[in-house]
Amino acid sequence: MWNNIFEAIDAQYENMVHTRRYLHQHPEVSFEETETAAFIQQTYDRLGIPYEKNVGGNGVLATLKGGKPGKKIALRADFDALPIHEENDVEYKSKVDGVMHACGHDGHTAALLGLAEAILPFQEDLPGTIVFLHQHAEEYAPGGAKPIIESGALEDVDAVFGTHLWVNTPTGVIQTTKGPFMAGADRFHITVKGKGGHGAIPHQTKDAIVIASQVVSSLQQIVSRRVNPLDTAVLTVGTFESGDAFNVIADSAFLTGTVRTFRPEVQELIIEEMEKVIKGACTGNDADYEFDYFKGYTPVVNHEKEASLILQDAPKADASLTTEEVEPVMAGEDFAYYLENKPGAFYFTGAQIPEHYYPHHHPKFDFDEKALPHAAKTLIQAYRSYQEQT
Amino acid sequence: MWNNIFEAIDAQYENMVHTRRYLHQHPEVSFEETETAAFIQQTYDRLGIPYEKNVGGNGVLATLKGGKPGKKIALRADFDALPIHEENDVEYKSKVDGVMHACGHDGHTAALLGLAEAILPFQEDLPGTIVFLHQHAEEYAPGGAKPIIESGALEDVDAVFGTHLWVNTPTGVIQTTKGPFMAGADRFHITVKGKGGHGAIPHQTKDAIVIASQVVSSLQQIVSRRVNPLDTAVLTVGTFESGDAFNVIADSAFLTGTVRTFRPEVQELIIEEMEKVIKGACTGNDADYEFDYFKGYTPVVNHEKEASLILQDAPKADASLTTEEVEPVMAGEDFAYYLENKPGAFYFTGAQIPEHYYPHHHPKFDFDEKALPHAAKTLIQAYRSYQEQT
Amino acid sequence: MWNNIFEAIDAQYENMVHTRRYLHQHPEVSFEETETAAFIQQTYDRLGIPYEKNVGGNGVLATLKGGKPGKKIALRADFDALPIHEENDVEYKSKVDGVMHACGHDGHTAALLGLAEAILPFQEDLPGTIVFLHQHAEEYAPGGAKPIIESGALEDVDAVFGTHLWVNTPTGVIQTTKGPFMAGADRFHITVKGKGGHGAIPHQTKDAIVIASQVVSSLQQIVSRRVNPLDTAVLTVGTFESGDAFNVIADSAFLTGTVRTFRPEVQELIIEEMEKVIKGACTGNDADYEFDYFKGYTPVVNHEKEASLILQDAPKADASLTTEEVEPVMAGEDFAYYLENKPGAFYFTGAQIPEHYYPHHHPKFDFDEKALPHAAKTLIQAYRSYQEQT
Amino acid sequence: MWNNIFEAIDAQYENMVHTRRYLHQHPEVSFEETETAAFIQQTYDRLGIPYEKNVGGNGVLATLKGGKPGKKIALRADFDALPIHEENDVEYKSKVDGVMHACGHDGHTAALLGLAEAILPFQEDLPGTIVFLHQHAEEYAPGGAKPIIESGALEDVDAVFGTHLWVNTPTGVIQTTKGPFMAGADRFHITVKGKGGHGAIPHQTKDAIVIASQVVSSLQQIVSRRVNPLDTAVLTVGTFESGDAFNVIADSAFLTGTVRTFRPEVQELIIEEMEKVIKGACTGNDADYEFDYFKGYTPVVNHEKEASLILQDAPKADASLTTEEVEPVMAGEDFAYYLENKPGAFYFTGAQIPEHYYPHHHPKFDFDEKALPHAAKTLIQAYRSYQEQT
Repeated sequence: MWNNIFEAIDAQYENMVHTRRYLHQHPEVSFEETETAAFIQQTYDRLGIPYEKNVGGNGVLATLKGGKPGKKIALRADFDALPIHEENDVEYKSKVDGVMHACGHDGHTAALLGLAEAILPFQEDLPGTIVFLHQHAEEYAPGGAKPIIESGALEDVDAVFGTHLWVNTPTGVIQTTKGPFMAGADRFHITVKGKGGHGAIPHQTKDAIVIASQVVSSLQQIVSRRVNPLDTAVLTVGTFESGDAFNVIADSAFLTGTVRTFRPEVQELIIEEMEKVIKGACTGNDADYEFDYFKGYTPVVNHEKEASLILQDAPKADASLTTEEVEPVMAGEDFAYYLENKPGAFYFTGAQIPEHYYPHHHPKFDFDEKALPHAAKTLIQAYRSYQEQT
Repeated sequence: MWNNIFEAIDAQYENMVHTRRYLHQHPEVSFEETETAAFIQQTYDRLGIPYEKNVGGNGVLATLKGGKPGKKIALRADFDALPIHEENDVEYKSKVDGVMHACGHDGHTAALLGLAEAILPFQEDLPGTIVFLHQHAEEYAPGGAKPIIESGALEDVDAVFGTHLWVNTPTGVIQTTKGPFMAGADRFHITVKGKGGHGAIPHQTKDAIVIASQVVSSLQQIVSRRVNPLDTAVLTVGTFESGDAFNVIADSAFLTGTVRTFRPEVQELIIEEMEKVIKGACTGNDADYEFDYFKGYTPVVNHEKEASLILQDAPKADASLTTEEVEPVMAGEDFAYYLENKPGAFYFTGAQIPEHYYPHHHPKFDFDEKALPHAAKTLIQAYRSYQEQT
Repeated sequence: MWNNIFEAIDAQYENMVHTRRYLHQHPEVSFEETETAAFIQQTYDRLGIPYEKNVGGNGVLATLKGGKPGKKIALRADFDALPIHEENDVEYKSKVDGVMHACGHDGHTAALLGLAEAILPFQEDLPGTIVFLHQHAEEYAPGGAKPIIESGALEDVDAVFGTHLWVNTPTGVIQTTKGPFMAGADRFHITVKGKGGHGAIPHQTKDAIVIASQVVSSLQQIVSRRVNPLDTAVLTVGTFESGDAFNVIADSAFLTGTVRTFRPEVQELIIEEMEKVIKGACTGNDADYEFDYFKGYTPVVNHEKEASLILQDAPKADASLTTEEVEPVMAGEDFAYYLENKPGAFYFTGAQIPEHYYPHHHPKFDFDEKALPHAAKTLIQAYRSYQEQT
Repeated sequence: MWNNIFEAIDAQYENMVHTRRYLHQHPEVSFEETETAAFIQQTYDRLGIPYEKNVGGNGVLATLKGGKPGKKIALRADFDALPIHEENDVEYKSKVDGVMHACGHDGHTAALLGLAEAILPFQEDLPGTIVFLHQHAEEYAPGGAKPIIESGALEDVDAVFGTHLWVNTPTGVIQTTKGPFMAGADRFHITVKGKGGHGAIPHQTKDAIVIASQVVSSLQQIVSRRVNPLDTAVLTVGTFESGDAFNVIADSAFLTGTVRTFRPEVQELIIEEMEKVIKGACTGNDADYEFDYFKGYTPVVNHEKEASLILQDAPKADASLTTEEVEPVMAGEDFAYYLENKPGAFYFTGAQIPEHYYPHHHPKFDFDEKALPHAAKTLIQAYRSYQEQT
C-alpha cells in the first residue's frame, strides 16, 4: 500500500503546484489569514474529510480515521505570509502589495492538501488516524501553535511531525538533528523619545534619529563583546522608523527586532545588556526611552527517537532522497510547542533553486516546487514509521 | 489715517483668531493646499477685492488699488502646513491625521486676511497699491515663491515685505537684520541598498539598518570635523525608514534630510563630504547606495534700506512693540527669491507662549495669537514707510 | 613507588611557592626571558640533571633517563611574562615596571622544577625518560614551541603533555576535552594614516583618532553580523595608540589585536571582512591605512586517547582531584604545535582564589598556589598512564 | 631714523635665519625650555643689554631704554616647542627625538633677537623703552604669560604687542582684527575605566577600547547637534592611549583633548554635554570614568585702537607688506592675558611656503624664513606707532 500512496502523491504534483501558486498570489499576514483558512476548508469540503475550523484562531484541523487500528498522529503545515513586498517577476507573483509568501508556507499548505487528496483512496487500509494540522500565524509571536494546543484539539494525539521547505538545502536532501534543532526567537520594541523641532535648529532638540542610530551601533557589541563566544546568539534590528519630514528633527524613533538563543541564561544576559545599552545611549543624549521585550518561541528540540525515524526512513518514501544530520539553525519556529507537549520531530525538506537563490524572508525568495511531493511523502513516511516502530 | 488703520486692525483681532483656528483645523501639506486657497479666495470674494488665483500653482494674489498715487508693494503670507501629527490638546487641534500647521503659516494667512478687511474702508485715501500675496508651498523645495515670480505676476511690483510669527522671540518684539538673515536650505535623499534576509541568518545578508545607522553617525563628523568652525552649517537627517518586519533583515534603508549653509563653498564641501561618508560606510559593508542632493532655497538676504525701515518704524504701528537687530538664523525661507528680484525685507514677529514653548515644527508647536495684529500692523507700516521714504 | 613520588611532590610545596614568587618578581616578556632561562639552568645544575640550553631560542630541555625501559615523554612548562603593569599589592609583586606574570607561567615553571627535584631520588626505578620541556615565548606569536620543534630536540619523544594553571576553574578540578580544546589565535596591526594639524583647525586635517574609533566600532559588526552565529569567533582590539599632544590632531593611529577561531573558513572570512571595514572607514574619511594580519597559533586539538588518560587517571595522583570534560575555550596556546607532531594532551589545573578572582591577563591576576602540586602530580601521572597503557 | 632701523633689520636677515635654525635643531617642550632661555640670555650678554631671567619660570625680559622720553612697550616672542616628531628632511631638522618647533616659536625668538641687535645702535635717539619679552610655555596651559604677569615684571609697561608667523597666510601679508581674534582654549582628560582580561574572553571584561571609541564618536555630536550652529566651537581629542598588549583586553583608556570657544556660555554648555556623553557611553557599558576639564587660555581680544595701528601702519615698516582685517581663528594663545591687563594687539605675519604647506603642529610644518624680518619690522613699527599716536 505505501508505495501506492507514494505514487499517488507524485500524481498530485500538478495539483500541488497549482494550489501553491494560487496561495502565493493571495498571501495574508499572521493572524489575518481568514481567506487562506477558508480555501483550506473548501478543499476538505470537496474531499469530504471532516474538519474543525477556527481552532485557536484561524487553525483548521482535518481528521482522516484509517480503517485499521493505530496511533493518532498530527502532520502540520503553517499557512501565514509576511509583510514583505515581492520583487520576483513570475506569473504567480503576489497580488497583494506589501504581503508575500516569502518563507514557503504556501508550499507547506499545498503539500499537506495534496497528501490528503492522495491518501484518501487508501483510507480503509490505513492504520491509525491522520490529523492534517493547518496552523495559522507561525511568523508572529505568540503564534498559532500555542492557542491550538490550548484549545485541547491535540490532546488525544500521540505524536506530531512537521517539515519546512528549505532553500539553503539542495532539493532531494532531508535534514534534521536530534535534540536542539531551531533557536528560541524573541521580539523587542524600542522607542527612543527625543525632542523634535526645526531641522535647522538642532541645539533646541534631542535628535531621535541620531540617538537611535547610536543604539543600533551599540547593540552590535552585545554579540561581539558580552556574550560568551562559545554561546550562540543573534540580535537583529528589523525595522527603524523615525521622522515625518526631511526638514523636521524627529521627536522619536521606533525600532523592532528579534533575538535568537538556545539557552535561557544567554537570553537573560542579552535582555539585561540591551537595557543597559539603550539606557546609556539615551541618557548620554538626555533622552528617554521605552524598551519592551517579548519572549517568543522556545527552541525547537526534536525528540531523539522521532528524529531518528526521519533520518533513517525518509529514503523509503522516495529512493532519490538522502538525509543529513546537521547543526542546529538560528531560525525559530513555534513547532517548538508541539514538541514540548508531544513526541515528534521537525525537519527540513531541501528546496533550493541554485540559479535563483535568495534566503528565506527575502523579497526575491522562491523555492523549487519539485520539493512539494518530497514534503508530502516524508510526512506520511514519518507517520508510517511511527505506526510501525511500536 | 494710519492710526485709524492700526485701530481697525486691532478690531479685527477676534476675526483673525477665528480664521487662524479654522485654518489650523484644516491643514494641507505643500503643493496640495487647494482647500486653503479656496478659503482665501472666498474671503476676497466676500470683501469684493479682486484677485488672481492659481498663480504659479495654488497662489492667490489680491490687489487693492488706493485712491492716491504711490508704489505697488506686495505683502506676503504663506499658507501650507507640514506632515506632522499634532500632539496639542486644544479645541482647534488639527482635524487631519498626520498634517499640522506646526510653523505658524495659519497665523500668517489670518493676519494678512485681517489686514485686508481692516484697510478696505480706507482705500480711497490710501497711497499706492497693496498686493496681498498669499503663497503656497513654502515648506517643500522648490517651493511656491519661484513659480509665482516666474508667472510674472510681480513684475510691476516695487518692493516685497513679509514676516514670520516666531516663537523663539517674545511677543511684542520684532527682529530682523540687514544682509543675510536666513540660511540656504537644501534637501537630500540617501538610499542604502543592502541585502535582506531572515532575521536569524545575518551572515547571508547585508543589514541595511546597521549600515544606515553608521551613515547617520558618520555624517555628524562633517559639521564637527570637516567644515571650518568659523563657518556655519547644519546637517539634519529628518527621516529614517527601513524594514518591514521585526524578524526580517532589511534590504534597504531610506533617509531624507536637510543641509543649511550661508556660503556656496560650504554647501559644495558638504555635498562632497557626504558622498565620501556614505560611500565609505556602504563599501565597508559591501553595500550599494543612491545619494540625491537637491539644492533648495538660497539664503534670505535682506536689503539694507528696507530692513532699516522695519527696525526703525515698527514701533510707529504699535507703541508696545520693540525692535532688535539680531544674528541670522539657520532656518530657510523661499522669501529669498523675492529679495533676489525686488527690494524688500523679511522679519520675525515675536509670538512666544512662555509656558508652552515648543520649537517650530514640533508636534506641540503653538504661538501667541496676540501677535496676529502685530504682524498685520508691522506689514502695513512697512508699506507706509516705503511709500513715504521717497 | 608512584605514591612515594606523589608524596615527594607534596613535600616540595614550600619550595615551589618560593620559586614561583621569585619568578613572579622577576618577569621577562616573550623572547627576552634570558634571566629566567638562566635561573632554570641553575636549578638543573644544582640537581645534576643534564640539559640543553638555547633550544629554539631561550628554551631549556632537561632529560632524566629512568633506570627502567619505557617511552620518552616531554612534560612542558612555559616561562614568559606579559607587558602588563601589576596592580596586586602582595609581597611578591613584580619588580619590573610594566611587566608581569599575569598568566601563571611562573607557576608552570615552579611546578615543573619542583617535580624534577621530587622525582630525582626515584630515577633508578623510573620507567622511560622524562624531558622537562621549559619553553620560552608562549604569549607572542610565532612563539617558542615552533622553533623548539624545528630544532629537532623532540624528534625521539613519544608524547607531550602540558597543563595550564586556570583561575576560571576551582582548585582541585582538572579540565580538558577530546579534540579541539583551545582556539587558533592570530595577531593584527592596523595603522590609520590621516593628516595631522593644529587641534583648533580640524577642517585642514584628517583626524586619525576619530577615524580609528570608527574602525573599532565597525569591527564589532564582523562578529555580530558577518560570522555565522553557529560559528565561534572573537575579534579583540588590544591596543590603541594615537596622538602626541592634547592640542594637536593626530596624524595616525596604531591598533593591534587578536582574532580567535576554530575553523580556517571563519578565519579567512574575518580577514576579508576586516580589510573591507577598515578600508570603508578610511576612504569615507579620505584617509589611508595599512593592515597586517599575522596568522598565529593553530587550534590546540587534543589526541583522543591521551586526553582520556587525563580525564580518567588524574585522581590517581591525588584523591582530592576531580576531572571534567568541558567545552573548548577561546584562548590560544602554541602547545598546538606539539600536538600536530606528537601524541599528547593539554589540560587545565584549577587554581582559582574565589575571593580574589581576576581573569588571566588582568593587572590583578593571581592564582591559588595550592594548585602547584596538582599541576606537578597530574603531569607525572600522565607520564605514568602513558607508560602503562601500552 | 626709522628707515635706518628697518634697513638694519633687513641686514640681520642671515643672522636671524642662523639663530632660527639653531633653535629649530634644539627644541624644548613647554616648561622645560632651560637651554633655550640660556641661549637668549647669552645673546643679550653679548649685546650688553640688561635682562631679568627666570621671570615667572623660564621667561627672559631684556630692557632697552631709549635716549628720548616715551612709553614703555613690551614686544613679545614665545620660545617653547611641541612633543611632535619632526618629519622634515632638512639640514636644520630637530636633533631631539619627539620634540619639534612645529609652530614657529623658533622664528619668533630669532626675529626678536635680530630686532634687538639691529636697533641697539639707535638707542640714543630712540623714544621710550623697549621690553624684549621672551616668554616660555605658550603651548601648554596654564602657560607662561600668566606667571610673567603675576611676577609684576610688566607692571610699568604701557602696552604689549606680539605676532605669530602664520603659514596659512602668504608671506608679505599681515593679518589681524579688532576685538576677538583668537579663541579660548581649554584642555580635558578622560579616563575610561573598564575591566581588563584575556583577549579571547571578552564577556568577562569591559573593553575600554571599544567604550572609549564610542566616546570619541559620540563627542562629535556635541558640535554637530548641541551647539547653536551660529556659535563657534571645536572639540578635538588629541591623544588616545589604551592597552599594553595585542592579546589583552584593555583595563582603561586615556584620552586628552582641547576645546575652543569664543563665549563662556558655549564653553559651559560643552563641558556639561561632554559629561553627559561620557557618562552615557560608560554606563551603557557598565564602566566607570574620570573626566577632568581644565579651563585654559581665555580668548585673545585685541584692543581696537592698537589693532588699528597694526592694520594702518604695518606697510610703513616695509612697502612690500599689505594688511588684511580677517575673521577670528580657532587657535588659542596666552597672549590673551597680556591684553586683559594692558592695551595692545596680536597679529599674524604671513610665512607660507606654497610648495611645502603643512598646517601648524604638523610633523612637516615649516615656514618661510623671509618672513622673519617682516615680524621684526612690524613689531618695532607697532612700537613706533604707539609712541607717536599720543
